Amino acid sequence: MGVQIGTQSLQFAEAPYIISSANIVGKKEGEGPLGNCFDVVGEDDIFGQNTWEEAESTLQKEALAMALGKVHMKKEEIRYLFSGDLLGQDIATSFGVMDYQVPLFGLYGACSTCGEALSLGAMCVAAGYAEYVAAMTSSHFASAEKQFRFPLEYANQRPLSATWTVTGSAAFILGKKRSKARITGITTGKIIDYGIKDSMNMGAAMAPAAADTICTNLTDFGRKPEDYDKIITGDLGTVGKEILLDLTRQQGFDISGVHEDCGILIFDSKKQKTGAGGSGCGCSAVTLSAYFLNKVEEGRLKRILFVPTGALLSTVSFNEGKTVPGIAHAVVIEHAG
Amino acid sequence: MGVQIGTQSLQFAEAPYIISSANIVGKKEGEGPLGNCFDVVGEDDIFGQNTWEEAESTLQKEALAMALGKVHMKKEEIRYLFSGDLLGQDIATSFGVMDYQVPLFGLYGACSTCGEALSLGAMCVAAGYAEYVAAMTSSHFASAEKQFRFPLEYANQRPLSATWTVTGSAAFILGKKRSKARITGITTGKIIDYGIKDSMNMGAAMAPAAADTICTNLTDFGRKPEDYDKIITGDLGTVGKEILLDLTRQQGFDISGVHEDCGILIFDSKKQKTGAGGSGCGCSAVTLSAYFLNKVEEGRLKRILFVPTGALLSTVSFNEGKTVPGIAHAVVIEHAG
Repeated sequence: MGVQIGTQSLQFAEAPYIISSANIVGKKEGEGPLGNCFDVVGEDDIFGQNTWEEAESTLQKEALAMALGKVHMKKEEIRYLFSGDLLGQDIATSFGVMDYQVPLFGLYGACSTCGEALSLGAMCVAAGYAEYVAAMTSSHFASAEKQFRFPLEYANQRPLSATWTVTGSAAFILGKKRSKARITGITTGKIIDYGIKDSMNMGAAMAPAAADTICTNLTDFGRKPEDYDKIITGDLGTVGKEILLDLTRQQGFDISGVHEDCGILIFDSKKQKTGAGGSGCGCSAVTLSAYFLNKVEEGRLKRILFVPTGALLSTVSFNEGKTVPGIAHAVVIEHAG
Repeated sequence: MGVQIGTQSLQFAEAPYIISSANIVGKKEGEGPLGNCFDVVGEDDIFGQNTWEEAESTLQKEALAMALGKVHMKKEEIRYLFSGDLLGQDIATSFGVMDYQVPLFGLYGACSTCGEALSLGAMCVAAGYAEYVAAMTSSHFASAEKQFRFPLEYANQRPLSATWTVTGSAAFILGKKRSKARITGITTGKIIDYGIKDSMNMGAAMAPAAADTICTNLTDFGRKPEDYDKIITGDLGTVGKEILLDLTRQQGFDISGVHEDCGILIFDSKKQKTGAGGSGCGCSAVTLSAYFLNKVEEGRLKRILFVPTGALLSTVSFNEGKTVPGIAHAVVIEHAG
């Protein structure tokens, strides 16, 4: 069960455990600063498939297979799957998880989807609706470029504020069985729109949503930034990070000492020419799975706030001159002794 | 709280109530057999906006405003919103609900989304995570044609097996406060793929998923078809209905005496030239809200199984030669005396 805290948060009385997680990334992510942390790094980004979309579906399939394999679980033990991706009509998810034959709640929260999936999964386990659920997301550089910008063959240029969609997927298995990390609370985000219209500056579009969710979390739980060893946003990149630090400061919280951004961590942006950093549903998911979760399990981080951040646009909304609103969902993850 | 029943179902101990619902549809739906039942029928389908997408967002905005208004509730009383639509990246939802500033779980289940939203909303209330939540979906004929087929100006032709996307949205407010209808259980669907590749025959693509979810529900709850006054699929249309009746019969359940399909009910297909019937996220949502829910509230229907059905495709998956898998989520709605 969970208790309603403040305006937007829940605290779980019997906090669900993160029993297993696994991740798989593309070649470029493997060459980045976190390269050694990932479970699987692809030799190329097509993963033996015929299309980029099939490649992305394969990422989800493999991530879930590995997450199950690590704890010797069968797919039949997973009662619900919470998953989503960036593609129109969530097709990477549909074709990725179809063969598992697990009841599916399809999600769309742009790059915040990992937070949404972990939140709903934790709510489900904490309420006793399932022994085990899986939460998963993916993104793929080539399928995202094709959808949101131009096919790769077009070789279009990008401003420095643009981010680089991460090719990767991570799966998390949540349950009541004890492990060394648990989800103790969540803060579900509202859509925040500061009127940004530049789809090549997603960091600026998402930072206000991240600031709102983080400040609401701190207020709802009565915590200071230092009560978290890390506050980790999804994919704001270098441009969005500055805006986030400013906006949270304006609301009375200095998070600069504990803030990290998965988009900044996953690439060496200067060397790898990834602009302002990494982005995509997969960015925060693989960084949590490969990099931060271990530290929580080992107790090197006692309590973190994981805040994937999403930009709510489509090519249609963009071409019709709409703004790019943001949303961010926060998940409190704590070391379990 | 809820109890796990069988392989895919939950039964709610303290079943959440459907406290309010409201619906709004376009001109053609208003001219159909259910025309007198809807809360609002638009004079045209643009609803005072500049684009079809904005028109669809307006449907969501209005539906939720009316659902709140009917029970004199403020938006601040809604703790979570579960909503989705058919457009790429859920933009009808994002721009429709943004102004409400309610924490949002964005969903994608194709035309099954109303079932998904009601399921997650009911789970949330039954677990004590919220006093009130709202579940909502929308679709719009013109925005869907533009996205999945051709812009209206193209005047393309359609086979008789094709369905007509409903222009409409319905919102449901769920909570612990007593009303005359409650959600007593759910059965969450798996993705079912029979290899159909014809995007102009969605009924055939979705019928196997509907059959699977309905038979699973009957098995999980140990019920016969007659234990439901109605088993109501979302938008199978005339072609899909025949397949559904065959497939359920093969699994030992004759549902022909109690089956209804929202897609068949909402249009007079011969007169209105809507092919096999209505479809879209809005189809099942407005038909439940405007037509069936009243009957449950008045006790003329004691127990119904509401099963919105979705076809999981995008133009990209279709053009890449992929199949059109289906998914269906079932919600048990009972009269509360």
